[in-house]
Amino acid sequence: MRVLVLAPHHDDETIGCGGTLAGFAAAGAEVLVSHVFDGSTGIADLTAAACREARRAEAEAAARILGCRLVPGLDLPDRMPHEPGALIRPLIALLRRTRPALLLGPHAGDRDHEHRLVAAAMEEAFWMASSPMFPELGVPCAPLSALLGYEVWTPIADAALTVDITAQAERKRAALSCYVSQDDASGWGAGGMGLSTYRGTTLLGGGLAEAFTLRRMRLDARDLIDLFNSPGAAK
Amino acid sequence: MRVLVLAPHHDDETIGCGGTLAGFAAAGAEVLVSHVFDGSTGIADLTAAACREARRAEAEAAARILGCRLVPGLDLPDRMPHEPGALIRPLIALLRRTRPALLLGPHAGDRDHEHRLVAAAMEEAFWMASSPMFPELGVPCAPLSALLGYEVWTPIADAALTVDITAQAERKRAALSCYVSQDDASGWGAGGMGLSTYRGTTLLGGGLAEAFTLRRMRLDARDLIDLFNSPGAAK
Amino acid sequence: MRVLVLAPHHDDETIGCGGTLAGFAAAGAEVLVSHVFDGSTGIADLTAAACREARRAEAEAAARILGCRLVPGLDLPDRMPHEPGALIRPLIALLRRTRPALLLGPHAGDRDHEHRLVAAAMEEAFWMASSPMFPELGVPCAPLSALLGYEVWTPIADAALTVDITAQAERKRAALSCYVSQDDASGWGAGGMGLSTYRGTTLLGGGLAEAFTLRRMRLDARDLIDLFNSPGAAK
Amino acid sequence: MRVLVLAPHHDDETIGCGGTLAGFAAAGAEVLVSHVFDGSTGIADLTAAACREARRAEAEAAARILGCRLVPGLDLPDRMPHEPGALIRPLIALLRRTRPALLLGPHAGDRDHEHRLVAAAMEEAFWMASSPMFPELGVPCAPLSALLGYEVWTPIADAALTVDITAQAERKRAALSCYVSQDDASGWGAGGMGLSTYRGTTLLGGGLAEAFTLRRMRLDARDLIDLFNSPGAAK
Amino acid sequence: MRVLVLAPHHDDETIGCGGTLAGFAAAGAEVLVSHVFDGSTGIADLTAAACREARRAEAEAAARILGCRLVPGLDLPDRMPHEPGALIRPLIALLRRTRPALLLGPHAGDRDHEHRLVAAAMEEAFWMASSPMFPELGVPCAPLSALLGYEVWTPIADAALTVDITAQAERKRAALSCYVSQDDASGWGAGGMGLSTYRGTTLLGGGLAEAFTLRRMRLDARDLIDLFNSPGAAK
Amino acid sequence: MRVLVLAPHHDDETIGCGGTLAGFAAAGAEVLVSHVFDGSTGIADLTAAACREARRAEAEAAARILGCRLVPGLDLPDRMPHEPGALIRPLIALLRRTRPALLLGPHAGDRDHEHRLVAAAMEEAFWMASSPMFPELGVPCAPLSALLGYEVWTPIADAALTVDITAQAERKRAALSCYVSQDDASGWGAGGMGLSTYRGTTLLGGGLAEAFTLRRMRLDARDLIDLFNSPGAAK
Repeated sequence: MRVLVLAPHHDDETIGCGGTLAGFAAAGAEVLVSHVFDGSTGIADLTAAACREARRAEAEAAARILGCRLVPGLDLPDRMPHEPGALIRPLIALLRRTRPALLLGPHAGDRDHEHRLVAAAMEEAFWMASSPMFPELGVPCAPLSALLGYEVWTPIADAALTVDITAQAERKRAALSCYVSQDDASGWGAGGMGLSTYRGTTLLGGGLAEAFTLRRMRLDARDLIDLFNSPGAAK
Repeated sequence: MRVLVLAPHHDDETIGCGGTLAGFAAAGAEVLVSHVFDGSTGIADLTAAACREARRAEAEAAARILGCRLVPGLDLPDRMPHEPGALIRPLIALLRRTRPALLLGPHAGDRDHEHRLVAAAMEEAFWMASSPMFPELGVPCAPLSALLGYEVWTPIADAALTVDITAQAERKRAALSCYVSQDDASGWGAGGMGLSTYRGTTLLGGGLAEAFTLRRMRLDARDLIDLFNSPGAAK
Repeated sequence: MRVLVLAPHHDDETIGCGGTLAGFAAAGAEVLVSHVFDGSTGIADLTAAACREARRAEAEAAARILGCRLVPGLDLPDRMPHEPGALIRPLIALLRRTRPALLLGPHAGDRDHEHRLVAAAMEEAFWMASSPMFPELGVPCAPLSALLGYEVWTPIADAALTVDITAQAERKRAALSCYVSQDDASGWGAGGMGLSTYRGTTLLGGGLAEAFTLRRMRLDARDLIDLFNSPGAAK
Repeated sequence: MRVLVLAPHHDDETIGCGGTLAGFAAAGAEVLVSHVFDGSTGIADLTAAACREARRAEAEAAARILGCRLVPGLDLPDRMPHEPGALIRPLIALLRRTRPALLLGPHAGDRDHEHRLVAAAMEEAFWMASSPMFPELGVPCAPLSALLGYEVWTPIADAALTVDITAQAERKRAALSCYVSQDDASGWGAGGMGLSTYRGTTLLGGGLAEAFTLRRMRLDARDLIDLFNSPGAAK
Repeated sequence: MRVLVLAPHHDDETIGCGGTLAGFAAAGAEVLVSHVFDGSTGIADLTAAACREARRAEAEAAARILGCRLVPGLDLPDRMPHEPGALIRPLIALLRRTRPALLLGPHAGDRDHEHRLVAAAMEEAFWMASSPMFPELGVPCAPLSALLGYEVWTPIADAALTVDITAQAERKRAALSCYVSQDDASGWGAGGMGLSTYRGTTLLGGGLAEAFTLRRMRLDARDLIDLFNSPGAAK
Repeated sequence: MRVLVLAPHHDDETIGCGGTLAGFAAAGAEVLVSHVFDGSTGIADLTAAACREARRAEAEAAARILGCRLVPGLDLPDRMPHEPGALIRPLIALLRRTRPALLLGPHAGDRDHEHRLVAAAMEEAFWMASSPMFPELGVPCAPLSALLGYEVWTPIADAALTVDITAQAERKRAALSCYVSQDDASGWGAGGMGLSTYRGTTLLGGGLAEAFTLRRMRLDARDLIDLFNSPGAAK
């Protein structure tokens, strides 16, 4: 199975769903990570180009630990005005190039403006990518199976899906520690693990977890039965 | 796998998720249906006892078509004042007796007062049934895997889960037609199929579908991969 | 009385409120339909120009059946980025040209991006059209009486207004069948009638109905009395 | 036409919709006001019985000015625990006795606990009163035409319906001044008129207005045309 | 302490929080008012330039009465399309120039499109102004203490903060009366005072008040104690 | 200043606002903690009486570390049906006995049923305690200054107030460690600190923090100035 994760900024994918990604990779899935903005801000005293380079290097290191592969993203300039609709077409093209079964990105209620821009565009591209519209953007892909939203700046008030990442805790911690610039700036190393620990307590009764919104999952009854008959389910 | 469906009134299970239930049964799951209220109202000119009997007979016939088995429910009197908390303890006992992996019931936004009572109690019983609390209500069960909400009186504005029921359309139609009293009163035979057809168009691009809210699904990454690798997924 | 219906795409007016429009026309109102986007996508294997032509012809045929008249709309290119504010000025001009008493369009919670763009712009243009602002856009019209939102891709969770369209059912069905391209693509013929049937069951207890949000209706007490004294009311 | 207004406490009907009621009465409607709670609290230093008497006398005087008639209400003790469902049955009986076309009461978002209790019970009784259920509560009435919610302690964030009460301003002011006990306690005389003035400015561009939520209005297209063709509409 | 108030249009600051501003000034704070749009519309029969001049003169007079000082704002053309993100950068620059401890502006739920644009941009600029990003926009300021939202066109459904302005009532009234053009157009003189009177009744039990949303206040426990120990608190 | 904290269950006060309470105490406030439910469930294999005793002893130890004092609460039996309105009267009596300036309790969106019961009752008792109603429940107190909601089972999506608890981190950790039974059951020791660490990162840019909803704070302008001029503010 192929999974695509959209991260507005370099580190969102690790904070929001690094444990889940490591679990996907460990179970044999191909996990692609694509950054929407170019990383040209967020480290004091660096030029835009140096900042971009530094943040991308951090993301490469984190992806390696999690077992993911970076794919070129939209490369939009950080923190500049972007019209919501303008992200939709490049996302359709990206989905048609990468053809994932599962798409993850920031949840729609995140208080960061750029996270919400990405979340809104994902909802559109999710169904348009498999429609016959826009032949100039590539061959339509098969309908995607599910769209999951992860949490970074704003916690999800009512999580539809909880993924147990207890077994991936050390990989997540190690991946977070690659983002030295963001840990220095606001303590995301401890903050990201703190959130997963809190989620483990409240959603699993212990261990570590990641929480997701779930929009537009398409299944049939057979899938659901397979799912809940699997040895990992219904813990 | 064992599935438990809670229906406030006799026919809600068929309207809201009859196609999905038929799909579960066809795929080998054991599907239990339990009615919360006693069916003593809802047919003009019948005594409470006769009404109850008539509605239960309709439910039996529908369940037979869908491949489900009725299990005794809470048997609360229809349309009488019920304190929200009062449903929680009998639901815990029911979950501990039946021990399902998956629980379905009305979604939390239904405009029928009694549907919302059931939805609220399900959210509590869902986690309490596996806690050590209330030993007098039975041996704690394993944590349930997921809680799904189906739609009857109020459509779900933003469905998390879409189940393709195209292959179960005729069974759903036949089961709805068992509820003669409700079809006579408000046309639920055509209304229930109308909703599934609309959901097929908007959520699948054709065919028939049932829409669900999804709350508190617990998985690990392996489950998700199995799910989306299954032949039925990602249509 | 003059009514203006804004439809993002060619068929939304028929799906969302075709029965109500036919009822308006049958009762003597002048019903104008205006499409916001140009119909240049949505049919596989056609050029933009041919697609536009085909969709407009379908809309003409449907309008004829419903008793409506098409008026030139905003003609914005389909599925391209549009800045929300950019629709407001052309809508003000359209309202000043057509001077309706009643305005209908998609409701604000539709999950289609372009439906929400139209809904947001309608809310602004609704009051600005009668203000002295923007004399370059035409002579201010009288304040409009009401703004109604119809449902297409996302059902309205809590409908303020239900219109009984049982008597217009065949006209709606016939108008939907004019939209051959959309029926082929996703079954909107059956899907649209399915929604009206479901609405009839849940909102009227039988028959067919269309559901609306209602924002900013302005009345005085006399109007309300006339309304509820009319022979058609309080069925 | 007959209108029924439910007021949790003695003065809510005047604050929330006194101008509209006066307009109804002036236009020839029969306007009934029924208080849900018994008025036994709310005036310092009075016994429950004296408080009840005093508040009822104030309500009688206000109703006389507005042209309404008080009808016996539910007479529940003020500010005591009441189970939400417990109000539904007496409300059904009241609706079957009074058989109004139009029902008004507090809107569902009011922050006063007892206002929300009444709003919730109204939504249920609104449809149950015309159903065949509960023959012991009286002969089912015809379906009501509309359910309107007025504002008292919490303003309505998004008003569906605005009623121009400029012509009834003096009657509303005079009726408010009958509630001496509440004006002394918290200035409701000025506060109620202040709200109507603010509503006039924001919703009508001047004059005085009352704002309402509107839930479940049932019409056909002919009614809507009559409505917006009436001389009072579209001001 | 320095306070900055953002007003979309000339008069919003007085309607929404004029009494609070006068209270701040009387207590020794430095209160700056900045208008986001240029005031080129909103008075019939004036050219854009004359309108702008007239509205600015009204704002100057009102500010003088309230004890505030106008500072140059963003000067964006009124009622033209503006991309949401486009306001963020000039707001960051403004915050870095003025370096306030407290920021007020329209609340996020106002139904005026331009009010919501300002509210959305304020939320972003609020935290970005003190970040190291965008050195070209000025030297980062200290983190702001609080972001308050005031009400104009849409009342706040659930106010977090109530400020007693009884002692500033006359100043607010006098400042409102400076906005002759807006009072003529829609009665904002009486409407603004009406809202404050209603808020006094419902939120303080008498007197006049202004209501606010409160987002992102940052304190420590000592601050809270000082606050609630102050002689003015806990009235 | 006197602060009252309502905790549904023994440990909620420490998880939700233990750092803030320690800060209050350190700054000289008198901090009272009152538990609503009796602690008779929540530890496997103990009788109700033993469970109650054990949980109370844990709460005593935690309160000692935080510098708070336990006061007798409502002592309602854990996890039994409680009618929402039934909590209001005992809460009024408690507020009149303890007469706090500031009231804290669970926020209204917590997914635990009993937390929401407490939150709803607090909103009512908050204003009723200072009203002349219910003289049998004690002498009315002065109006309270503010009502704050803390987070336990469900994070607050949009926190109004952030309190920096970096300086109280060790006390919070030590108090959490007194709740051995809850830490054993679901890891609340690590989970509670994890949440505070996440909040420090996202809301302060480092350190530890607690997040609150804020409802009904009443101030005048002078208080706000004092607040934001205090040395602790605007960090």
